[in-house]
Amino acid sequence: MDAINLLEKAGLVDALWSPRVVGELNDVQVKVARIHGDFVWHDHEDTDELFLVIQGSMRVEYRDRAVTLNEGEMHIVPKGIEHRTAADEECWCVIMEPRGVVNTGEAGGELTAANDVWV
Amino acid sequence: MDAINLLEKAGLVDALWSPRVVGELNDVQVKVARIHGDFVWHDHEDTDELFLVIQGSMRVEYRDRAVTLNEGEMHIVPKGIEHRTAADEECWCVIMEPRGVVNTGEAGGELTAANDVWV
Repeated sequence: MDAINLLEKAGLVDALWSPRVVGELNDVQVKVARIHGDFVWHDHEDTDELFLVIQGSMRVEYRDRAVTLNEGEMHIVPKGIEHRTAADEECWCVIMEPRGVVNTGEAGGELTAANDVWV
Repeated sequence: MDAINLLEKAGLVDALWSPRVVGELNDVQVKVARIHGDFVWHDHEDTDELFLVIQGSMRVEYRDRAVTLNEGEMHIVPKGIEHRTAADEECWCVIMEPRGVVNTGEAGGELTAANDVWV
């Protein structure tokens, strides 16, 4: 029940593409992540997914377009829509989605992160 | 489906204590608000409530303590716990809670804002 400093929390994350939980709003988890490079194409059949950049910049890529996000900018991926995140330089972001959602969706692979790890 | 700049959106809000919706993550609305002064004591029986400061600073006050939030800091009020927000100078923040939640809870009063107004 204290103030959660998002940049400070992101700085404690010890690996890329490994979102760590910093809080819960009902069933929705607030996570921080460090990303760099391209993620895998995937979708989440049952849920939207929120991205908010807190340092650097990133893209949310769709098959037909891309949304660039700079610091203080947010984007919500609609459920069921294939997407991947990408960052040319390391970017720190907040990710919000319901507890239990797997970061790679059905795609799986080596970038699949452990779930429900707090920082 | 574009980038949502939170500061830009907050700058478009034309009244204090009047959260405006900027996006939806499933049933959860992402709102921006400008606050200044003291809100009313209230609680939300059925939901947590998230606050994230994007400009200035604010307090989330409980009956027995207060949490100060500066830029980039977040706090989640647990459901059912009486609280009020306060800001000595104007503060811009993000508020997240499910669609349909009334800002003053059961307390009502003149600070009760229209719901589901987008900016």
